[in-house]
Amino acid sequence: MSHAMDAFFNPSAVAVAGASSSSVKLGNVTLANLLRFGYRGRVYAIHPRAGEIMGVPAFPSLREIGEPVDVAVGVLPREQMIDFVEDCAAARVGSVIVCAAGYSDAGAEGAEMQERLARAVRQRGMRMMGPNSVGTISTGSGFVTSLMTLDPMEVGDISIVAQTGLFAGGFARWIASTQRFGVSKVACLGNKADVDEVDMLSYLEGDPSTGVICVYSEGIHRGREFLELAQRVTETKPVLMLKGGSSELGGRMAASHTGSMAGEDAVLRGALAQAGVIQVRGIDGLFDAAKAISYCPVPAGPNLGVVSITGAGTVLVADACQRRGLNLPSPSPETARRAGKGLPGWARLVNPMDIWSATLQGTVEDAYRVILGAFAGEKEMHMLMAVFTLVPESEFDAAAVLSAIREEHPEKPLLACFLGASEVDRRRWFSALEEIRIPVYDSVERCVDAAWALARYAARRKNRGG
Amino acid sequence: MSHAMDAFFNPSAVAVAGASSSSVKLGNVTLANLLRFGYRGRVYAIHPRAGEIMGVPAFPSLREIGEPVDVAVGVLPREQMIDFVEDCAAARVGSVIVCAAGYSDAGAEGAEMQERLARAVRQRGMRMMGPNSVGTISTGSGFVTSLMTLDPMEVGDISIVAQTGLFAGGFARWIASTQRFGVSKVACLGNKADVDEVDMLSYLEGDPSTGVICVYSEGIHRGREFLELAQRVTETKPVLMLKGGSSELGGRMAASHTGSMAGEDAVLRGALAQAGVIQVRGIDGLFDAAKAISYCPVPAGPNLGVVSITGAGTVLVADACQRRGLNLPSPSPETARRAGKGLPGWARLVNPMDIWSATLQGTVEDAYRVILGAFAGEKEMHMLMAVFTLVPESEFDAAAVLSAIREEHPEKPLLACFLGASEVDRRRWFSALEEIRIPVYDSVERCVDAAWALARYAARRKNRGG
Repeated sequence: MSHAMDAFFNPSAVAVAGASSSSVKLGNVTLANLLRFGYRGRVYAIHPRAGEIMGVPAFPSLREIGEPVDVAVGVLPREQMIDFVEDCAAARVGSVIVCAAGYSDAGAEGAEMQERLARAVRQRGMRMMGPNSVGTISTGSGFVTSLMTLDPMEVGDISIVAQTGLFAGGFARWIASTQRFGVSKVACLGNKADVDEVDMLSYLEGDPSTGVICVYSEGIHRGREFLELAQRVTETKPVLMLKGGSSELGGRMAASHTGSMAGEDAVLRGALAQAGVIQVRGIDGLFDAAKAISYCPVPAGPNLGVVSITGAGTVLVADACQRRGLNLPSPSPETARRAGKGLPGWARLVNPMDIWSATLQGTVEDAYRVILGAFAGEKEMHMLMAVFTLVPESEFDAAAVLSAIREEHPEKPLLACFLGASEVDRRRWFSALEEIRIPVYDSVERCVDAAWALARYAARRKNRGG
Repeated sequence: MSHAMDAFFNPSAVAVAGASSSSVKLGNVTLANLLRFGYRGRVYAIHPRAGEIMGVPAFPSLREIGEPVDVAVGVLPREQMIDFVEDCAAARVGSVIVCAAGYSDAGAEGAEMQERLARAVRQRGMRMMGPNSVGTISTGSGFVTSLMTLDPMEVGDISIVAQTGLFAGGFARWIASTQRFGVSKVACLGNKADVDEVDMLSYLEGDPSTGVICVYSEGIHRGREFLELAQRVTETKPVLMLKGGSSELGGRMAASHTGSMAGEDAVLRGALAQAGVIQVRGIDGLFDAAKAISYCPVPAGPNLGVVSITGAGTVLVADACQRRGLNLPSPSPETARRAGKGLPGWARLVNPMDIWSATLQGTVEDAYRVILGAFAGEKEMHMLMAVFTLVPESEFDAAAVLSAIREEHPEKPLLACFLGASEVDRRRWFSALEEIRIPVYDSVERCVDAAWALARYAARRKNRGG
């Protein structure tokens, strides 16, 4: 038996209410997305008069379709929503995505309307995503109900559950046009009157196409259930969370955004950490960590071996590691011996290692190969980081060098960051490295933060095993 | 009389030692940079045999040039450097940039060689930048001595003093190819055996083409002098500092990178703040703040008025403001009245304001114009921030709308950030907004950090006036 949430991502048939035959409304955007992503299920439009919208057959109501429909998308004003739910129930449509806003995000009257809507849904045994949801994305099935025009993304193992439409909007477009990582599912929970983080976490736990679970939440209503579930899920799948509304004012804004309850943030954060949830900073931090965990193996521990062509890179890495509690173990005599041939006589091997001196003696390529290669063989260095600055004078085939090192030590995550580059160089290096699944960052701090997330996940897995 | 440092940025003549007629050495890169940036002074190469290198006349020694030379660049092994300094002295060249590494960045022997070099320079009354300097940049005169191939940058009012070559390397290339802000001067101090932050701060204080001073330092040798000077400079020019080596390990790395002393970081940070120096996080933070201060007027206070098309944007802004101690004052009844016509009946005006509901009623453009316009008129909101997410459905001419608001309130900084965008959309919006000097950021947190830097500078100026 499939999970109840599956209807929001892999339905056999969907109906969209709110498209228009004459003007471009948000419902039309949803229809266009379904067509553009190549959704292979049946699609219907619900419209009082039109027989067809954008090539999609249209019916005045769900009841008149005469074929089973798994999920209905209501891109309608809030005033029409209860009627729409009743139509769904009459047509035995079990799941509904409600896009209208103006509910708990809009004061007491809206909250009351939301309660009525949720009651209507519950009484009919249906499940609802929203209200105030921007929709869902499933790259595997091409099922996309977003209200925002999207371009197809790579299929991948990162799934996102969010109390905002951003990940089914601007960030989905950002991923599609600039990122190499793939996405499995995106759920925009909106006001969470029914489907919430607990439902989604339970679904994604068992979803074979999801490897990394990202959550943006402004407050967990069913805190105890979520924590219990997370405690189990995080033993096998990483759960990353960006908690919005962690400040007093942010909490108040969260209340007006999605009607979330604030005020217990510190307690919640502690409990989330206990349950193995990795809490990140900012949306950048969420994607940075997700990418590292998606690309890399689980490291054996939290220690880094770092090679940088710039001395400032080693200083900034050390500062960032200390802030994050990551260790930079000193190289063993054996490693120093192995790396020694790449260094001028006066240079001493340390970690993080500034290879500027080595590049004055040999080539930049040799310096990275010999010294990062030596660090890769160091048992106490569980993760490797290469810090680059891209100038014509430091040009080499980094992807070839790093992949050779990784072939010898496939068990060690290998991360990279750029300290300055021209647009063209950055793009070229980024593509070459991310193509072979070496995660690349534009600052030392973001790279170290991603390594920290890897280390957190590793610790969680170890605790479970030990 | 010109400042002693002027020879490093606006010399009438320069000689470069270390270019080669037969192979491409770093000295050749320096010559090529001078030609590419259109330096209009005289250029000479120093080479034992060649009569000309890359079209530049070459002489076996400085003494044989027979014309006055203001500054010499030594792209030579450390072993030849004392002889080179003696040649400089004999030719009455008062300033020298030493690019060789392997001095205090390389253990006791190197430190001793550095002391000998510094003594040689001092005894001859010369000034030295370095050793271990990657060079200098002055966009106004086209004088560029970097060892890294650079492309010309926009002339602007941001100057950078750094104990790393990154800003005369990868980051100079990043600025030239991706940024709209201009640069005045870059000094790579290297090991600071002679010229240091005090010299440069004193120079930039009086430099009319410098409006914002950025410092990356791993430790200030002449702490008291720097603090006294900064105390005065920051009253009229903002000084931003990224302090590397703030952790214990980072401090040790700094010692091996540039021979800096660590260990007093907490004390130094407190003293720097007292002296009005604005301390930033990471290189991103340095540029983010510099851009905001370069583009924007000095705000009357630290309060923000924020309009966001996404509710999550308001939540994240509130969290970031609380962390940074910035206030988000509630709109006055008068402002609420002015903005009210842009809102659905059920929506209440707050700050930060989520305009998602307003866009369901009217257009996105109207929502920003009416509500941000109303916030601009609010006396207690000293800075304005627009949070965008770029999807086709939210497309409008933001530059036109924001510049109209700014025309009515030119005294208020106006900042923007994007929460998600396709590559193409981001580029287009970034160019349109930065073209009219509205600073744009890729995250809410970075935008708030930049506003915080503006607020810090405003507080400093107020303290001085009051």
